[in-house]
Amino acid sequence: MIRTHDAGSLRATDAGTTVTLAGWVARRRDHGGVIFVDLRDGSGVVQVVFREEDAHALRNEFCVKVVGEVNARPAGNENPELATGAIEVVASELTVLSEAAPLPLPIDDTITASDDIRLKYRYLDLRRSGPAKALRLRSRANQIAREVLHARDFNEIETPTLTRSTPEGARDFLVPVRLQPGTWYALPQSPQLFKQLLMVAGMERYYQIARCYRDEDFRADRQPEFTQLDIEMSFVTQDDIIELGEEIVSKLWSELAGYEIPLPIPRITWHDAMNRYGSDKPDLRFNLELTELTDYLRGTEFRVFAGAIDAGGYVGAVVMPGGAAQTRKELDGWQDWAKARGARGLAYVVLDAETGAPRGPVAKNLSAAHLEGLADAVGAKPGDAVFFAASTDRREAQELLGAARIEIAKRAKLIDEDAWAFCWVVDAPMFERTDDGGWTAVHHPFTSPNEEWLDKFETAPDQALAYAYDIVCNGNEIGGGSVRIHRGDVQSRVFDLLGITPEEAQDKFGFLLEAFKYGPPPHAGIALGWDRACMLLGGFDSIREVISFPKSRGGFDPLTGAPTPITAQQRLEAGVDAKPKATAGTPGTDGQAVPVERSN
Amino acid sequence: MIRTHDAGSLRATDAGTTVTLAGWVARRRDHGGVIFVDLRDGSGVVQVVFREEDAHALRNEFCVKVVGEVNARPAGNENPELATGAIEVVASELTVLSEAAPLPLPIDDTITASDDIRLKYRYLDLRRSGPAKALRLRSRANQIAREVLHARDFNEIETPTLTRSTPEGARDFLVPVRLQPGTWYALPQSPQLFKQLLMVAGMERYYQIARCYRDEDFRADRQPEFTQLDIEMSFVTQDDIIELGEEIVSKLWSELAGYEIPLPIPRITWHDAMNRYGSDKPDLRFNLELTELTDYLRGTEFRVFAGAIDAGGYVGAVVMPGGAAQTRKELDGWQDWAKARGARGLAYVVLDAETGAPRGPVAKNLSAAHLEGLADAVGAKPGDAVFFAASTDRREAQELLGAARIEIAKRAKLIDEDAWAFCWVVDAPMFERTDDGGWTAVHHPFTSPNEEWLDKFETAPDQALAYAYDIVCNGNEIGGGSVRIHRGDVQSRVFDLLGITPEEAQDKFGFLLEAFKYGPPPHAGIALGWDRACMLLGGFDSIREVISFPKSRGGFDPLTGAPTPITAQQRLEAGVDAKPKATAGTPGTDGQAVPVERSN
Repeated sequence: MIRTHDAGSLRATDAGTTVTLAGWVARRRDHGGVIFVDLRDGSGVVQVVFREEDAHALRNEFCVKVVGEVNARPAGNENPELATGAIEVVASELTVLSEAAPLPLPIDDTITASDDIRLKYRYLDLRRSGPAKALRLRSRANQIAREVLHARDFNEIETPTLTRSTPEGARDFLVPVRLQPGTWYALPQSPQLFKQLLMVAGMERYYQIARCYRDEDFRADRQPEFTQLDIEMSFVTQDDIIELGEEIVSKLWSELAGYEIPLPIPRITWHDAMNRYGSDKPDLRFNLELTELTDYLRGTEFRVFAGAIDAGGYVGAVVMPGGAAQTRKELDGWQDWAKARGARGLAYVVLDAETGAPRGPVAKNLSAAHLEGLADAVGAKPGDAVFFAASTDRREAQELLGAARIEIAKRAKLIDEDAWAFCWVVDAPMFERTDDGGWTAVHHPFTSPNEEWLDKFETAPDQALAYAYDIVCNGNEIGGGSVRIHRGDVQSRVFDLLGITPEEAQDKFGFLLEAFKYGPPPHAGIALGWDRACMLLGGFDSIREVISFPKSRGGFDPLTGAPTPITAQQRLEAGVDAKPKATAGTPGTDGQAVPVERSN
Repeated sequence: MIRTHDAGSLRATDAGTTVTLAGWVARRRDHGGVIFVDLRDGSGVVQVVFREEDAHALRNEFCVKVVGEVNARPAGNENPELATGAIEVVASELTVLSEAAPLPLPIDDTITASDDIRLKYRYLDLRRSGPAKALRLRSRANQIAREVLHARDFNEIETPTLTRSTPEGARDFLVPVRLQPGTWYALPQSPQLFKQLLMVAGMERYYQIARCYRDEDFRADRQPEFTQLDIEMSFVTQDDIIELGEEIVSKLWSELAGYEIPLPIPRITWHDAMNRYGSDKPDLRFNLELTELTDYLRGTEFRVFAGAIDAGGYVGAVVMPGGAAQTRKELDGWQDWAKARGARGLAYVVLDAETGAPRGPVAKNLSAAHLEGLADAVGAKPGDAVFFAASTDRREAQELLGAARIEIAKRAKLIDEDAWAFCWVVDAPMFERTDDGGWTAVHHPFTSPNEEWLDKFETAPDQALAYAYDIVCNGNEIGGGSVRIHRGDVQSRVFDLLGITPEEAQDKFGFLLEAFKYGPPPHAGIALGWDRACMLLGGFDSIREVISFPKSRGGFDPLTGAPTPITAQQRLEAGVDAKPKATAGTPGTDGQAVPVERSN
C-alpha cells in the first residue's frame, strides 16, 4: 500500500504518529506561509498543513501522497463537525502522484450540476460524498441480502444472458450471432425461465443479483439494463416467500435506513388496495382512503354519475382535508391535472369552512338529500374538498381517485417524508379481459390460482385470484412474485381459458412445458427491483443515483458516447444481414416461454 | 414449507419422529408387499418404506410428499455408505406432487450421456449429484471470495453491459439500439474500462463477479459469455494485488478442494518460465525442465541446429524419462504430434537403457563430442529420450519444448492428478514486435512498466518489463492483471513507442484519457477467470460443468434452441437496417479505450 493510514480514520489518539496518506486535494486555504489542505480519500477527509513553499503548486483534485506527523490541533481550532477534527497532519513530505486539469464539475456536495455534465464526468461526480455513498450503500445492500440468503442455504447461480428471443413478450434487445449468421440471441428480460428450470433441476433454493434488459421507450427513471434480486424456491408456499422477503427487506432498512420495519408487514388484498387507495401499490404513509359512493348516489339525476351507476360501474370520492381553502385557480388546476392523466376532468364539491355547506359545480347537480349526507358518507369535515370519479370501468375510476389521493397528499403536505410504510399486496386477480372479449393472464400464464380458485377459476375468471404478491414501500413496488403452476392439469386448464391451444402452447412455451413433464416440484419466487430498492434505501429521487454509470434518456451514455454506429466490417462479420439457414437455431427443440417476473 | 425435514438430514437420533418429506423418487425396489424408495431432495437421500398398495404407481423422478415415521433400520440392514443409512422412514401418507414421463436422461451418476443430451435436458442432468454439486461449489466459491473482499472494505459495483463498441479490439457482440436507430451497443469484453474509471472516481476498492462477452471462434471450452472475478484497487503496488489474490485463492482451495496452498505462492519471472518450462503458464506439478543447448551445440554441423544458432536463435531440449523404451511407432508418433502443432518435427536422441549410448536419427548428425556430453548437458540417464527444438525464434522453439514437456508428462505419467501447483508469473514483457517491425503492447497500452524500466523502456523495448502478473494453477492461467499507468508523461511515451499519435490516442482512448486528466490515482487490478477457477476447484474437465446452462459449440443452446431467426417486425423495430444520423452517438465525446483484462 502506498499509504499507511486512511485519512478519515485519524483521531486524537494518533497524535505523534508519523503517517503516510494518499488521496485528493479537496480544498486548499492559504494562510501566509502556511497552506491548509483538506486531503480526501475513500475513508474521509483530514486537514494537512504544508509550508507554503512546499505546496504552492497544489490545485484542487491533484492526487498526492503526504508523509507527516499527526498533531492535535491548537486549542480552539478543533472542528467538531469533522470526524478527524481534533487533529491535523503536519506534512514533511509531499509527492504529487498526478495533476488535475481545471474541473468541469466542481467536487462539492453543495453545487448541483446538470445531469448531462454529471453523467459525462461521472468519475468526478462520484468523488462527491453523496454519489460515492450511494454506490457504497448499494454494495452493502448486496451483502446484507446475501447474508440472509446464504444463511438459508440458497445457491447463487448465474443464468445465461445470451438467450432465446421471445417475439410475443415485451421488446427484447437482440444480438446477431456471427457463428450462426441470420440468427440472434436476445438479452433476458429476467431470469424467470431459467430459475424455473433450476427448480425442475432440483436446485431448490436459487438466487442471483441478476442483470436484466428491456427495450422500452424511456420513461423517467427507466434504464435499458437494470438489476433485480431474483429468488426462487421449491416446496414452499406463498407465506414462505413473504417471510423471506420480509427478512431481507427488514435487514436492509434496519442497517441502511436506520428503520426497524414492524413485522410481519401488513398484507392487503389487491381488491382492498384498489377499493381503499385506488392503487395496487398504495402509499400508506398517510391515512386518506377512497369512499365508494355507487350505492349512496344510486338514483341521482346527475348524468355523469347516473351513467356510470346504471351501467354497473363505479362512483367514488376522495377527500382533500382543508381543500375548500383552495382558490378557484387551484381548483381549476385539478381539471388540468386530471386531463393530463387522460381523464375528462375531476368533479368536486367543497364544503364551506364555516357552515359545511356544499358548493361548486357538482353540488348544483346533486339532490338536497345527496348533498346533505355527503360529508358523512365520505368522512369530510367543513373546509374540506371532495373529489369524485365515475366510470363504467371501476378500475379506471379508482385509479383516477388513487392518483388524486397522492396528489392531494403532496399538495396538502400529508406525507411525512421521513416515514416508511410497507405492505404486501396479495390475492391479485389471475385474469383480465382482452379487447376482443377473451382473457389474458395478469401476471403470466404460469402463475398459480390460489387454493380457493384452483378447482374453479373457469367459473368466474374475472374474480379468480392468484398466489401473486407484491411488496410495496411508500407507494413504490419494490418486488413481486408468485407461486407457479407445477401441475400439468392446472396448466392445461389455464391455457384453455386463455384460448391457447396445445399446439400454440408447444410453440410458445415448448421447452418449459417439456421440462415440466419430469416431476416439477411446487415452487414460488420473487424478484426485488434492486435499483429502486437501493434508491429508496438511500433516500434518492432517481435510480440513476445508485447505478455506477447510468444511461441518460434514450439510452445514451454521455461518458462513452455509446451507442455508436458500427463499421461496415463489423456489420458484415456479425452476420447482421445474413439470411438464416432453414433449420438454423431450432434443431431438436421448438417453442419459447414468455413468463417474466420483474420488479422495476 | 411443504416439508418438515430435509431427507438427507435424518439420523438415528430422529428415530420415532414423524416427518414430512418432499423430493424425488430416485430408485424403487419392490419386495413383495413392501416397496422401498430412495427419496432424494437437495440435502441427500433417505430410504422410505411403503406398503405396496400405496406406492405401486410411483415411478422414477415422480415428485412426491411423504409423511412417515423415522425408524431405526432393522439390525443388519444399515447402510454405512449413506449418511441416512441408519434409519428409514415408514410412510403413512403419500402425495404425488407431479408425475414424470419416461426419462430421456437417466438420473444416475454412473451413466454418461452425450453432451448434447445433457445440455438439452440440463434440468435432468442437474438432478445428478455431480452436476448439482458443481453449481453448489460455485455458489460457495462466490461467497468465499466475497467474504475476503468485504473484510477488506471492497465495494461490489455493477458496471454497464450495454457499452460502446471497440472496433480495434477483439470482436464485440453488438446490440442494435431501437431508440437511436443505426447505432449499436457492444457487450463488454471485460469491465476494464469502467473499473479504471471507478478508480479515477475515488472508489479505491472495487470488485464484481462480472459477466463478460467475447465473440470468438469457438475453441474447446470457450463460451460466448463468461465470468470473471474482477478487482481493482487504488494506491497499491503489485505486491498488494498478489497478496490479495493469494488470500482469495488459498481460501478457495482450502475449503473447496481441501488443499492448503503454501504461501506465499512462488513467483517466477516470465522469462524464467519460458526458459525453464517453455510456457508462460507452467505446470509445476512435475519437475521436468527445459535445457538450453544453444551454447553447448555451437559449432555443430547438423544444419537444423546450426541454422538456428548462427541466426542468433535457440536450441534446447527436454528429457523424457524412460523414453528410450518407446517403440519406433511411438517415436514416429511424436513427429505427428509436432506437425499437428505446426512444427516441422521433433528431433530426438534415445539413450540406450543398458549402455547409455545415444541413437536415433539426430545422433547420426551430431559429433562424437556433442553426443558424449549430451546426457550430462540435459540431465538424462540411460533409458531416457531427449527431444530437441531449434528455431531462430527463441519463443517458438521454447513453446514447442514446453508443449512436449506436457505431453511427456502425460505419456510418462509424471503428473500426480491429485497434486496442486500454483505460481505467479511476473515481469512479463511490455512489448512485442509487430509484423511490420513496430511494437505492440503485450498486455494493453495502459500497463505500467516496472520500476526498473519506467524511465528507459524506449531504450530496449524488447527487454522492457511490465508490472503484469498471472496466477497459474496446474498449468492453467486462472487470473491475471497489472499495475496501470497513471502518469500522463509515461502514457505519452508508451503511445509514442507504439506509434500512436496524440490524435489517434484521442480517437481510440478519448474518454479514458480525458478522465486521466483529473488526478488519477496509482491503481492496479486483477481478474480471475471464474469459470476456469471453479472448474479446477471441482476437479472438472470442462468449464461447462460449472455453468448452469452452457452453450454447446458454435454458441448453440440445445435446451432453448437459441439463437433463432428474428421476425421482420423485430428487425424493423430494432432499427437494424437504419442509417445512423450524422451526429448520432457521438455528441460531446469521441474515442474509445480498448484495454481489456481477461482471464479465460
